[in-house]
Amino acid sequence: MSPIWAKSCMPHSPLACLHELSLSPPSASDKSADRERLAGELAAAGFQGVRIPLDVLRKIPGELRKNRFELQLIMVRAKEGWDLIDTGEGAVYGLALDIGSTNIELSLFDLVRGRKVSNDVIENPQVRFGPDVLTRVQRSMTGEFDLISAVLLDSINGYIATKCKVLGVARERIAAVTVAGNTIESHFFLGLDVRNLPVSPYVPVFNKALYAKAGEAGLAINANALVYVFPNAGSYVGGDIISGILSSGIYKEERPCLFIDVGTNVEITLGCGEWIMTGAGAAGPALEGDIAGIGKRAEEGTISGVRIDRHTKRAELQVIGGGEPSGICGSGLIDLVSEMFAAGVIDASGLLQCGAGCEGPVVALNGERAYVVYTSPERKLFITQAEIRNFMLSKAAMFSSLYVFVKSVGLTFKDIERVYVAGALGCGINIESAVNIGMLPDIPREKFLLLGNSAIKGAEMMLMDRELPETVDAIAAKITYREMNEDPELMQVLQGAMFLPHTEPDLLKG
Amino acid sequence: MSPIWAKSCMPHSPLACLHELSLSPPSASDKSADRERLAGELAAAGFQGVRIPLDVLRKIPGELRKNRFELQLIMVRAKEGWDLIDTGEGAVYGLALDIGSTNIELSLFDLVRGRKVSNDVIENPQVRFGPDVLTRVQRSMTGEFDLISAVLLDSINGYIATKCKVLGVARERIAAVTVAGNTIESHFFLGLDVRNLPVSPYVPVFNKALYAKAGEAGLAINANALVYVFPNAGSYVGGDIISGILSSGIYKEERPCLFIDVGTNVEITLGCGEWIMTGAGAAGPALEGDIAGIGKRAEEGTISGVRIDRHTKRAELQVIGGGEPSGICGSGLIDLVSEMFAAGVIDASGLLQCGAGCEGPVVALNGERAYVVYTSPERKLFITQAEIRNFMLSKAAMFSSLYVFVKSVGLTFKDIERVYVAGALGCGINIESAVNIGMLPDIPREKFLLLGNSAIKGAEMMLMDRELPETVDAIAAKITYREMNEDPELMQVLQGAMFLPHTEPDLLKG
Repeated sequence: MSPIWAKSCMPHSPLACLHELSLSPPSASDKSADRERLAGELAAAGFQGVRIPLDVLRKIPGELRKNRFELQLIMVRAKEGWDLIDTGEGAVYGLALDIGSTNIELSLFDLVRGRKVSNDVIENPQVRFGPDVLTRVQRSMTGEFDLISAVLLDSINGYIATKCKVLGVARERIAAVTVAGNTIESHFFLGLDVRNLPVSPYVPVFNKALYAKAGEAGLAINANALVYVFPNAGSYVGGDIISGILSSGIYKEERPCLFIDVGTNVEITLGCGEWIMTGAGAAGPALEGDIAGIGKRAEEGTISGVRIDRHTKRAELQVIGGGEPSGICGSGLIDLVSEMFAAGVIDASGLLQCGAGCEGPVVALNGERAYVVYTSPERKLFITQAEIRNFMLSKAAMFSSLYVFVKSVGLTFKDIERVYVAGALGCGINIESAVNIGMLPDIPREKFLLLGNSAIKGAEMMLMDRELPETVDAIAAKITYREMNEDPELMQVLQGAMFLPHTEPDLLKG
Repeated sequence: MSPIWAKSCMPHSPLACLHELSLSPPSASDKSADRERLAGELAAAGFQGVRIPLDVLRKIPGELRKNRFELQLIMVRAKEGWDLIDTGEGAVYGLALDIGSTNIELSLFDLVRGRKVSNDVIENPQVRFGPDVLTRVQRSMTGEFDLISAVLLDSINGYIATKCKVLGVARERIAAVTVAGNTIESHFFLGLDVRNLPVSPYVPVFNKALYAKAGEAGLAINANALVYVFPNAGSYVGGDIISGILSSGIYKEERPCLFIDVGTNVEITLGCGEWIMTGAGAAGPALEGDIAGIGKRAEEGTISGVRIDRHTKRAELQVIGGGEPSGICGSGLIDLVSEMFAAGVIDASGLLQCGAGCEGPVVALNGERAYVVYTSPERKLFITQAEIRNFMLSKAAMFSSLYVFVKSVGLTFKDIERVYVAGALGCGINIESAVNIGMLPDIPREKFLLLGNSAIKGAEMMLMDRELPETVDAIAAKITYREMNEDPELMQVLQGAMFLPHTEPDLLKG
């Protein structure tokens, strides 16, 4: 499936750009000062009211005269207008950041050529202070804030330093950074107090988009570079969601669309051009990592697809990069459970079925049943009955959240124009499998669209389109947050959703 | 004479102020973020679109909750709106600076009480790189720029550190600095390239008012403090002149006024509400220091007034602080020459008159005649014939510049509403004496007003009135510069002005 955002973004008017300027030299009849001469020409070129920091102004007179009044300028579109942040030839770069609880994704862009130069995912080093953000906030409250905040920044600066060295990029040429992250991670990144986020009434330090200079934010790039941090819409709706909404485009749709972000948590957004409602789905174990011992993220050696022979009940695996598998990602797991159900390896309640004597791929393991996903002389991969139950809980939580969310605004699944699925299912969820097990609603398949990591995509779009901050402000202003865990219907739907596909299959259709 | 500026300034709306704010705490029905809550309340109090630097924002959540949502905020009126630069109780200070070629004058203000806390004059440490700014620029061109620029900043920072220590003022509470200086000194202060200033077409790096943060300017006060540098109107009309024009008030007058600033150079400004013309007077030796070996600035022990006994020809001296004199300031010198002329000690051409054998106060000294200004067993103060000639040159240059300047716009002295005299004559010029020797025009004495150091006064006014940046922009935009040294009439008037009071006394009246 082609990425949706490609068609609507990349109009190539990035937040930072290189502007070439040829000035008429001063003369007896034109004695205007260097700064005003430059500002005047820039205004004529569309850069009104440019601000020039003192360190840049100190370089200008020499550069002007050395280059016969021709200059290459790095211009940055800040909140209140244009900043001239540096001079000199060469590429201009931008960095898009998605700071997730578990991983940080970073995309470096050549803003002049409008081209992605690199994309990497690194682990969030804060994991060692706790796998989830709430633990990190708790530890911050007991005195470790500076440290927990610093390791994040250090890790990003370290990545930048290494990447720039490898690519031969001067760090000072990175002129803009866009940051999408959940509310707590955005606060950690900026060194802002996180103590009030998890405590009623859940008040962040900032909600509206935050503009800073790289120097104040402590980023080791051009000190005058723009740092744009996506707005939050409260403690629970972070910049990552808003960035995802941006990249999905649902804010432009006429009819309601669903946007599901499956990361460490499941975040559900429902809306269109007129309104947007978002909320965290009912909690289940995270699809990635938490569910099964063999769970891992999509990379070389990860099982991303499964087919089970209806007769032998044995699995045929699709492994990223081929070769021997070492684990299974979220979408592989969905495939696996769907196939186990279709092949009769598990029943509708998720119980592993075993023939007399349990010969075949269902085996006994440490006192419980388990299914052999893969076996070779070197390696065995199992999924246990308890792990399947964990998965059932997650899929039930996801479906019932979607159901209740849609119903709460008086809609049914039939009214949904499109369903965008983003997040950790990025290695390519098999929609058919997800519908078969009752994780996603049973609506026409062409309505589903996969976005991968939508937060980084929104951050990338922002980097490349200076009109988008306004769009994002409008999105943020439109968002209402819906608390779902208190919904009485949720528990009822959840009960039935613990079965495959559901005890009341009609619910799947809306 | 009471200072003119007092009546028109100090409306007590300073560039920086302390604002006390009591916020309603967040609640279930009001979950807005700390930053937006604060910005909203500030907007309601008249501080629209406030900017909060990241380092301040990091402190806000803790301070809010520690002080039950009551805050004391240091607000600064920057170019594009209000900045919140710090929190915490206590006074807020502002520093007004006049950076002259020879001296730096610094006034510290308590901006909350609207009160001057201290005023000092220190020597410009750049003097050791050359007594005049052009020498400093030349040495900058040959590699000493960084050093010459740094000693200035170091000296100001050193002063601030000492003063704050003595007064018990926290440097971080200095929130605004206004800087008036000639164009070259303003450039040195900001670390801006001076190389193009003395070279045709004499182009500064900046002309319009410059706003910077103390951190970028290198001032060791609150890093977010505003640094406002007065605009220049070219290489030759600096911020000190514009600040002086501001403090004189001539830009508000209906009829033309003269504003004469006698510092190291004589700067003449003629204008009113509709137009302002300014220019450097014809060069003569500086009244202060350069003319006579005994010349010195007005301080304890300086002769500030002279009367000569018509019979004995001996001088009776007025000495600052009483006691034995150690030198004479500019206004003392004017008095001295006027009295020597009136008493017949010198003739109209300035020649020392000597009775037979030269007994009395006119003596022979190293082969030339000299007048004994003061004599005691410990000390003798002389003025020599050559020094009197130097003085005659200065007074002639000053008068003829004034004459030509006024005449060039089709006016005569009779059309002048007021004459403001500012600068080194600050210890109180005797207008009568200056007119008697033909240095100032012979117009009704009540038209003369003394301003002292008008540049520091303008800088002080600016500190205390946030409406004035706009006024100053308007002044700067109105100024035209007139080159006087090329005027053919100048030399002609200068010839006659070498006599006391002038070979054509009618010229003195217009």
